[in-house]
Amino acid sequence: MRQIVTGFHAIEERVRRAADEQNENGGKKGAEIVLHVAKTGPRVKKILEAARNAGIKIVNEDAKALDSLVRSLPEVARDHRGIVMEADGEESKANVVDFDRWILEAGQSQEKMTVLILDSITDPHNVGAIIRSCDQFGASLVVMPSRHGASDVSENEIIARSSAGASAYVPVAVVTNLVRAAQMLKEAGFWLYGADAGGENVREVEFADKTAIVMGSEGSGIGKLLESQCDKIVSIPTCGKIDSLNVSVAAGVLLYETSGRK
Amino acid sequence: MRQIVTGFHAIEERVRRAADEQNENGGKKGAEIVLHVAKTGPRVKKILEAARNAGIKIVNEDAKALDSLVRSLPEVARDHRGIVMEADGEESKANVVDFDRWILEAGQSQEKMTVLILDSITDPHNVGAIIRSCDQFGASLVVMPSRHGASDVSENEIIARSSAGASAYVPVAVVTNLVRAAQMLKEAGFWLYGADAGGENVREVEFADKTAIVMGSEGSGIGKLLESQCDKIVSIPTCGKIDSLNVSVAAGVLLYETSGRK
Repeated sequence: MRQIVTGFHAIEERVRRAADEQNENGGKKGAEIVLHVAKTGPRVKKILEAARNAGIKIVNEDAKALDSLVRSLPEVARDHRGIVMEADGEESKANVVDFDRWILEAGQSQEKMTVLILDSITDPHNVGAIIRSCDQFGASLVVMPSRHGASDVSENEIIARSSAGASAYVPVAVVTNLVRAAQMLKEAGFWLYGADAGGENVREVEFADKTAIVMGSEGSGIGKLLESQCDKIVSIPTCGKIDSLNVSVAAGVLLYETSGRK
Repeated sequence: MRQIVTGFHAIEERVRRAADEQNENGGKKGAEIVLHVAKTGPRVKKILEAARNAGIKIVNEDAKALDSLVRSLPEVARDHRGIVMEADGEESKANVVDFDRWILEAGQSQEKMTVLILDSITDPHNVGAIIRSCDQFGASLVVMPSRHGASDVSENEIIARSSAGASAYVPVAVVTNLVRAAQMLKEAGFWLYGADAGGENVREVEFADKTAIVMGSEGSGIGKLLESQCDKIVSIPTCGKIDSLNVSVAAGVLLYETSGRK
């Protein structure tokens, strides 16, 4: 399936991957991607240089041609800023893994791991930003309920874009039952930390080697059944006049804290 | 000027403020705000209860009437989810302060303070999310260059919405010259920390009592002249396959670190 990619970050990321693949396969890759370019600011120039080195085809066009290429994208992705990538759709899929198989391997591993469980976080911009932070702070897995599964292509496009390309790397498991997934994580040696108000100050928490963090939505928090599975509730100390942090900022702070554990 | 507000967070925040004002003024306020309601889920019910207590007028309407109320808003704010607030436009303005006067007072104060300088952060969603984190982590001031000033109403609407109402509280100074503002902060006793790659690990930085953090854009970082003003470059340790954190997540982590300083 042909796929249209916009956004400097997502395109840069894809060009980098194409270059990596070219190195691995002795110069064979690159031809499946086409860059349509209408405007060349300094950042686009850098992209084009990298693209040429990766053997990617570049086509100069007017802005109108680019406008028509992005017409099928969701509104948020239609601002192409002078460069649009057309690529084989297979590669940019999210890195969806099978939860049962993942947990089997994780249970046998002795390594430090952080898993993020997303309960009722429906905004694809937030999901994407969280996946991006997972990449940056080395989280091993994101678990999401299947009602936000891989079926909605436009939602996935926003997730991929908001993740700045990280959704192609960070393993995501889509499960039908988050409570069961939480139980399986605990059986595999994970400690479950629920992020909510009124818990232990996250600065003072000694996170376990195998840590799973449950994030709820900003409005309603973590579901009751899932919260009852948590070994501990942890809170980010805040003051302020409004009632909470943005959920992707909160996830970022928690991942930052866990990534620094001894 | 009549103002249309959408988004549960922003509306809740505004209702809370109306209740505060009513308490302060002996029940006089509330009449300037009207809530238009088409759908009453659990969250809207809570809002309506609080609104009644604050003396706010509530009007039941069909979804189409709400659709036409939000027609003038920017696309991102048009998803009303069954409730729209109509209010006097004055109150929701950003809390814009005069930089020169602020710095005069800050220079005489002995309190711990954190200032955030936003260099080339143009996306109003990011600006709003950052202001929200400033509220939550108790930052004293946000400094922005005037090219993102108060003139663009639709942009300000997105900032207010993304800040979940915090933009009404967090002091923002709009200046014509960020380098001069940085120099004035230093003269007033602030240490300037630039957030960029290759700096000191933020976990090991002992932030000064008067701390100013400079954030650059994800693409191009901090401007050279401004970076040369910085006393220290600080970095959030990350790994990962893509090249950076989302700028509002990075700002959140830095504000979290500074808010915990002894």
